[in-house]
Amino acid sequence: MTEVTKSLKLYTGRSNPDLAERIATHLGMELGKIKITTFKNGEIYARYLESVRGCDVFLIQSVSGNVNDALMELLIMTDAAKRASARTVTAVITHYGYSRQDKKSASREPITAKLVANMLTVAGVDRIIAIDLHQGQIQGFFDIPVNHLTALPIFAEYFSAKSFDDVCVVSPDVGRAKAAKKLADLLSADIAIMHKGRPSHNVAEITNVIGDVIGKTCIINDDMIDTAGSVDAAITALRKQGAGKIYICATHGLFSGPAYERIANADVEEVVVCDTIAVPEGQVTDKIKVVTVAPLLADAVLNVFSEASVSELFDPDFQL
Amino acid sequence: MTEVTKSLKLYTGRSNPDLAERIATHLGMELGKIKITTFKNGEIYARYLESVRGCDVFLIQSVSGNVNDALMELLIMTDAAKRASARTVTAVITHYGYSRQDKKSASREPITAKLVANMLTVAGVDRIIAIDLHQGQIQGFFDIPVNHLTALPIFAEYFSAKSFDDVCVVSPDVGRAKAAKKLADLLSADIAIMHKGRPSHNVAEITNVIGDVIGKTCIINDDMIDTAGSVDAAITALRKQGAGKIYICATHGLFSGPAYERIANADVEEVVVCDTIAVPEGQVTDKIKVVTVAPLLADAVLNVFSEASVSELFDPDFQL
Amino acid sequence: MTEVTKSLKLYTGRSNPDLAERIATHLGMELGKIKITTFKNGEIYARYLESVRGCDVFLIQSVSGNVNDALMELLIMTDAAKRASARTVTAVITHYGYSRQDKKSASREPITAKLVANMLTVAGVDRIIAIDLHQGQIQGFFDIPVNHLTALPIFAEYFSAKSFDDVCVVSPDVGRAKAAKKLADLLSADIAIMHKGRPSHNVAEITNVIGDVIGKTCIINDDMIDTAGSVDAAITALRKQGAGKIYICATHGLFSGPAYERIANADVEEVVVCDTIAVPEGQVTDKIKVVTVAPLLADAVLNVFSEASVSELFDPDFQL
Amino acid sequence: MTEVTKSLKLYTGRSNPDLAERIATHLGMELGKIKITTFKNGEIYARYLESVRGCDVFLIQSVSGNVNDALMELLIMTDAAKRASARTVTAVITHYGYSRQDKKSASREPITAKLVANMLTVAGVDRIIAIDLHQGQIQGFFDIPVNHLTALPIFAEYFSAKSFDDVCVVSPDVGRAKAAKKLADLLSADIAIMHKGRPSHNVAEITNVIGDVIGKTCIINDDMIDTAGSVDAAITALRKQGAGKIYICATHGLFSGPAYERIANADVEEVVVCDTIAVPEGQVTDKIKVVTVAPLLADAVLNVFSEASVSELFDPDFQL
Amino acid sequence: MTEVTKSLKLYTGRSNPDLAERIATHLGMELGKIKITTFKNGEIYARYLESVRGCDVFLIQSVSGNVNDALMELLIMTDAAKRASARTVTAVITHYGYSRQDKKSASREPITAKLVANMLTVAGVDRIIAIDLHQGQIQGFFDIPVNHLTALPIFAEYFSAKSFDDVCVVSPDVGRAKAAKKLADLLSADIAIMHKGRPSHNVAEITNVIGDVIGKTCIINDDMIDTAGSVDAAITALRKQGAGKIYICATHGLFSGPAYERIANADVEEVVVCDTIAVPEGQVTDKIKVVTVAPLLADAVLNVFSEASVSELFDPDFQL
Amino acid sequence: MTEVTKSLKLYTGRSNPDLAERIATHLGMELGKIKITTFKNGEIYARYLESVRGCDVFLIQSVSGNVNDALMELLIMTDAAKRASARTVTAVITHYGYSRQDKKSASREPITAKLVANMLTVAGVDRIIAIDLHQGQIQGFFDIPVNHLTALPIFAEYFSAKSFDDVCVVSPDVGRAKAAKKLADLLSADIAIMHKGRPSHNVAEITNVIGDVIGKTCIINDDMIDTAGSVDAAITALRKQGAGKIYICATHGLFSGPAYERIANADVEEVVVCDTIAVPEGQVTDKIKVVTVAPLLADAVLNVFSEASVSELFDPDFQL
Repeated sequence: MTEVTKSLKLYTGRSNPDLAERIATHLGMELGKIKITTFKNGEIYARYLESVRGCDVFLIQSVSGNVNDALMELLIMTDAAKRASARTVTAVITHYGYSRQDKKSASREPITAKLVANMLTVAGVDRIIAIDLHQGQIQGFFDIPVNHLTALPIFAEYFSAKSFDDVCVVSPDVGRAKAAKKLADLLSADIAIMHKGRPSHNVAEITNVIGDVIGKTCIINDDMIDTAGSVDAAITALRKQGAGKIYICATHGLFSGPAYERIANADVEEVVVCDTIAVPEGQVTDKIKVVTVAPLLADAVLNVFSEASVSELFDPDFQL
Repeated sequence: MTEVTKSLKLYTGRSNPDLAERIATHLGMELGKIKITTFKNGEIYARYLESVRGCDVFLIQSVSGNVNDALMELLIMTDAAKRASARTVTAVITHYGYSRQDKKSASREPITAKLVANMLTVAGVDRIIAIDLHQGQIQGFFDIPVNHLTALPIFAEYFSAKSFDDVCVVSPDVGRAKAAKKLADLLSADIAIMHKGRPSHNVAEITNVIGDVIGKTCIINDDMIDTAGSVDAAITALRKQGAGKIYICATHGLFSGPAYERIANADVEEVVVCDTIAVPEGQVTDKIKVVTVAPLLADAVLNVFSEASVSELFDPDFQL
Repeated sequence: MTEVTKSLKLYTGRSNPDLAERIATHLGMELGKIKITTFKNGEIYARYLESVRGCDVFLIQSVSGNVNDALMELLIMTDAAKRASARTVTAVITHYGYSRQDKKSASREPITAKLVANMLTVAGVDRIIAIDLHQGQIQGFFDIPVNHLTALPIFAEYFSAKSFDDVCVVSPDVGRAKAAKKLADLLSADIAIMHKGRPSHNVAEITNVIGDVIGKTCIINDDMIDTAGSVDAAITALRKQGAGKIYICATHGLFSGPAYERIANADVEEVVVCDTIAVPEGQVTDKIKVVTVAPLLADAVLNVFSEASVSELFDPDFQL
Repeated sequence: MTEVTKSLKLYTGRSNPDLAERIATHLGMELGKIKITTFKNGEIYARYLESVRGCDVFLIQSVSGNVNDALMELLIMTDAAKRASARTVTAVITHYGYSRQDKKSASREPITAKLVANMLTVAGVDRIIAIDLHQGQIQGFFDIPVNHLTALPIFAEYFSAKSFDDVCVVSPDVGRAKAAKKLADLLSADIAIMHKGRPSHNVAEITNVIGDVIGKTCIINDDMIDTAGSVDAAITALRKQGAGKIYICATHGLFSGPAYERIANADVEEVVVCDTIAVPEGQVTDKIKVVTVAPLLADAVLNVFSEASVSELFDPDFQL
Repeated sequence: MTEVTKSLKLYTGRSNPDLAERIATHLGMELGKIKITTFKNGEIYARYLESVRGCDVFLIQSVSGNVNDALMELLIMTDAAKRASARTVTAVITHYGYSRQDKKSASREPITAKLVANMLTVAGVDRIIAIDLHQGQIQGFFDIPVNHLTALPIFAEYFSAKSFDDVCVVSPDVGRAKAAKKLADLLSADIAIMHKGRPSHNVAEITNVIGDVIGKTCIINDDMIDTAGSVDAAITALRKQGAGKIYICATHGLFSGPAYERIANADVEEVVVCDTIAVPEGQVTDKIKVVTVAPLLADAVLNVFSEASVSELFDPDFQL
Repeated sequence: MTEVTKSLKLYTGRSNPDLAERIATHLGMELGKIKITTFKNGEIYARYLESVRGCDVFLIQSVSGNVNDALMELLIMTDAAKRASARTVTAVITHYGYSRQDKKSASREPITAKLVANMLTVAGVDRIIAIDLHQGQIQGFFDIPVNHLTALPIFAEYFSAKSFDDVCVVSPDVGRAKAAKKLADLLSADIAIMHKGRPSHNVAEITNVIGDVIGKTCIINDDMIDTAGSVDAAITALRKQGAGKIYICATHGLFSGPAYERIANADVEEVVVCDTIAVPEGQVTDKIKVVTVAPLLADAVLNVFSEASVSELFDPDFQL
């Protein structure tokens, strides 16, 4: 009769190693040794440089940037860990690529977010830790446990420190209104909702602002900033309504295509994103701020490993 | 060498046989013969009274009323069909019970809508036809094809026939705003959105109405009416804003608990629901109207069987 | 390196909470905190009110009464436990509803007992503890371990205490003859077997009694009493053969439909059932006795949890 | 647009090719060409010598004799057919080896009949045709359709032709009493049941005969004859009760170990078995008769292929 | 009763559309209409622009170039086809990326070729058509049918047309010796094998040539040319052995990294590859020739669709 | 909170119990108690005679001899262990029967090595320990971890002890050249490769020897010796080339059919095999030597159980 033991091993893919380092630092440990390379023909190769037999392996990856490369890398790391007899593999997916492809909006479309879920499962992932998924329903794409965290309290803390006088949290579309309300409650702020539509028919579609923003410091909250196109439209609409200073916060800063240029030109104080997606160093400016989710993820990893409750980390009241 | 042939067989569970009859009538065929009984100990028993070998079997069931009984009945019918060598089993789920349990809103909750999806799949269902699911993401809970229809055009036709002058479609909460907009577009109507919240902090939560409803004929649109509590609140809020006549339409009329009483007392012209859930005959009154989805479902069944495109039936533009 | 630990958590569904309490008492522990409610629309909701992460969760449920509700409740509890990262889920199914639907007796029938097994498996159950299944073959419907217990020793103890002089255990039909023989052996009693048939052709079907029962105290043993119809027939036949006092024992007291009335009118000393199905308090009378399986199930739970052998609890010689 | 066609292809394994030939003859077709060999190291190799792409392949095999070889051969034939793009594979299992290992009778036993079911399924079998399985519950070990036939009408026809005066069908143990009753009904015969047990305690176990057999022509019916040990005991007991001439019929003639010798010495007129297991030619004597199930299986194959109902072939009233 | 029909629909991913066009031309049909785009954030989106319900869909993709993008694109196309109720999906994988990762050569490595197989299967692929896989064992990574073709006869035809006098087929390493022998047999040529090793110990590793190549026209055959490093070494070794003119043929021309430069500088007449991987137009020179596999793949597609035998297309004698 | 413990239990099938005993001895423990019998009808029965609940069960079996019996026995042992709630089941497959059936070499063949992998998985095996599989790719037939060991160092040690002067390791065909090179490196020996082919066309196929063997002590290395036919041919060819003394070593000594006779007559000093397959005692002679893999397997078992790294046992450099 021998006691069963377990070891926590933390590995990072190559899409967001800085965040992984920060998580490891918070946990007071080092990232595990793994060799990951891309061959000249584009194939990825991974090999653990130390035994993972019987270990609880946590793989930190942001499925972003070269999104298919990042996803495949995560799957290959999982396959290698399972074949090396890891006890469990937890994928810490700091950004879940394809999360907006979560239903058929038109006929003969894929549901790629589900395909990704199936791929993770078939590769051997035992548990997912994710943060601000595009829709909470993505949890149901899995039959394995999903710990779904939110960065809203981090944003709340960030903006609270600024001690604004008269604040209004703005949802950039109706679908994100619940999240805006959560953030508003955390900040004891007002709320406004934007929606694209026609005030009456035969009138061109415009971005409406619901709620009073006149003279208020506005914080637009979204789950991600992609090309920053809707951010632009939102700022214009808020300006038209007489808003005061405008801040933007979003968990995932994809900053695709013209995003950086648009933000540089935008009439906005700050764009605050989390480090769930690596922001190139040169791009972190006075205008683009990055707050870290490392402590949040470190706590989740530790609680999952030590089999403590994770729920304190994702207060039900913040579930979207 | 023999040609492979297929036959369309239509069977109904016991939760909504009238709708099944209407679908069969539209298809110019009769419902298949099946014996379904409940034993004194509560167990359900089903047996096909004719061969289904090699047939494309369509099982029509509304997972409502005694929701667990209705679900189990559908699963048992599926099991019997598969073991009797049916070629395919398509579940025509006119109301998908547990559809609101589609994500974890709090820790240690189930995702019962996914559990239901897994149960249908393990029982042997090959394809789902559903109508106005609570969230489109539920399609992604399945790896089998889901044909997701909408009743919005039926409601549009119904209200168009009334030739209202000045109409406004009202979404009872922010989550349903997209559907309201679709209906508004079909009716060339205005749109208003309700949301519960605080205009400023330290003020009690109220139901806000966004958009101008003064003097307008309002059509509140929702996916389902359960206890009719939110309907009540919506009417009160609309009245306060000076709305004109108020109509309500919802695909699924669950009418649970105090629903009928609330509606009887409500200051509303009509409550229009589809026959996706059987409404007891005595309850169909001047105030509670039922429009049928039978032609829509009949077309879907026929197109699926004949392997024609179903997409005309669910114009991508109506996908929620 | 950390030791892997486990905690035993016991939860009850709502179909037989009294038995669950008794099991907990025997284990010297309290039932875990879980909230289970039924919404007005008939949907069941469950949420664990404490962390189950890493725990060995035992769910006690009798799939009886509103059999589909009880089954669905168990599945939902399982789904919630798995998603909350329980280490294992053991379903303690005190009565396995649909167990008599264990094969196709006619063409185009379901095999619902297998469907139930698949549903439990797909929901995430890791192990089953059951008691006196209708047929031992149901174990083979599962690929997960099934611990199949028997209440026969409990009945043996009960009747031994009565110190009858001349006892005969009677099987009410040929299919249960093996169980009757086990009980007879435990009681050092004679055995008799009843079977419905024709002594010669062209003669109406009657209930035959094989073996000598004249003047003997007869103990009819069955796995369940449903509507008590066969019990009635058995008593009549025994009387005709000159039996002495008649007792009936059956593991599962379903008491459906006219059962209580039939028993009230029956010429029988006692009807003894286990508490695998909750018997309404008013129905436990001088005539209807209930013996508890709580110690047996408590031992099974403890042995499974502590990974001791369960086999002492189900002596192979008692396997049916 | 092309019509989908299908072809019926019939292949035999090497355990019972004569029966396969008979089935093919009844179907007016020839057995398909397949090469099956056993290498010197004991490994089996199979290759189809003609295209099976898109065909409905029926594999006829008796899992008997060298039971593991026969099973493995069937699995290998299945694997080859699936990889060669057969449309469906139906395993016509004339004898299902390991069928008596259908539950755990003692702790730490396997349930090999379920293991076999899983092996067939994982190899790619789409449908099973079987005959007189040891227990009907084995159907529930599969999630694919199982067509379960019975040879009882064949035996009824055989004995009817003999025009016995006063016949009694005897079940050799309580578990087979239902089958005996079916045969008795088909023959308008009486019934008797044997069971091993003690008429009263402290008396040695004997084989009891229930029912009157004095002077009657007795037909003992069982599902299989293995070592013929229980047959011997049954004859002795019947003789003691004053039975007339004794016949034995059993679907599956395994004739293991001392079976032929025991039968040669037994006081019995005839032992009638089906050709579900190949009986060596020299062993078919005046005493051991073989009746063929070829027409029954040929009809089942044809109906399955042509997607007609198979249920006429297995009248629900004959289901055990 | 309706006849089941099927339609052949051919779609191409974006990695090798020219080959897909050639296949379509050979089949006398047009490629189906599908919209595939890459969003600015790197996510791929695909939508069929016509109904595929009930169709046999063939997806042509070379998993090469941006190998992860190409693979993900194929998986997304599959997901969309299955959800749109395609009858079957056949993946025509003209180059199987990751095929060299087919076993663990070191501990804690992945077996990515198996991971890819599992991903294709979970996405819903029903059948694979592949050509010159790195190892034939990859067929066994699938449980679905794999039609494994070879381009060797195409190369044989190409070189036969040149009417060389004295030819020797050279295998660049021992692992490819079987393929070289096949090609040599087709060309009635001699064979030589190269292997890296030490003729005796303490001597540096060199590339040995086994067999006589002096003055002969040498055709080096490999399954793929990646960085062309081993090609270089082979030429050097052949030259040292006094070979005559040197040709190289390989099914898959990856031409990664320094490949084009190395080939440009190499002492070789021609490098002949198939169009299984798109060769940029500017790179097809006098030295780099491309022969098409379009007729071979077109025949395979047609035979699979029409359920004729594919085996003529891959003569067993050419299986590696 | 209880610590989770585990126990190592070692059981042997009946195909190679002596090796199992040796492994147990090396581990300083006894083989577990299990009853395995074959019934007269050829069915195998297994029952653990002690609790395995919560234990890490290692099942040692050589799938050789009566290969199908040995395989089925292993599967049955697995099924029984899983149903008895073993924590894990590791199959220590000392010889993997059917390993040469690892791809389709001709159309309409099975891939039986994959079928075997699927059977092991469906029976419930959690991990495989194997030794010198015919092809390393067989690891990829599994999704469970496979620890693939090699006996080459054992052979190296054996022959090193003989202190030969001038040694050459000979690969009997091109497919085994890599293994020969590994052994040569371990022995600091030369290497030669044999291949069947034609030096020029129109010349009969002969066995060629590549490399210089004149006067050298030759050690032919193969993975298995089956009928010893290719051994015979190899010796003849080596003699013709002027080889000195000839030794043969192969991991698996199947010795089928004429093998012993051929070896007795062969011009060879020794034939050395491992005890992965039981060699009948009378056959171990001066000419046929057996070296044991027991220490190697014992170490693998211990490391797997104690969750240490197994990789030292299979130095990546020895992976084939």
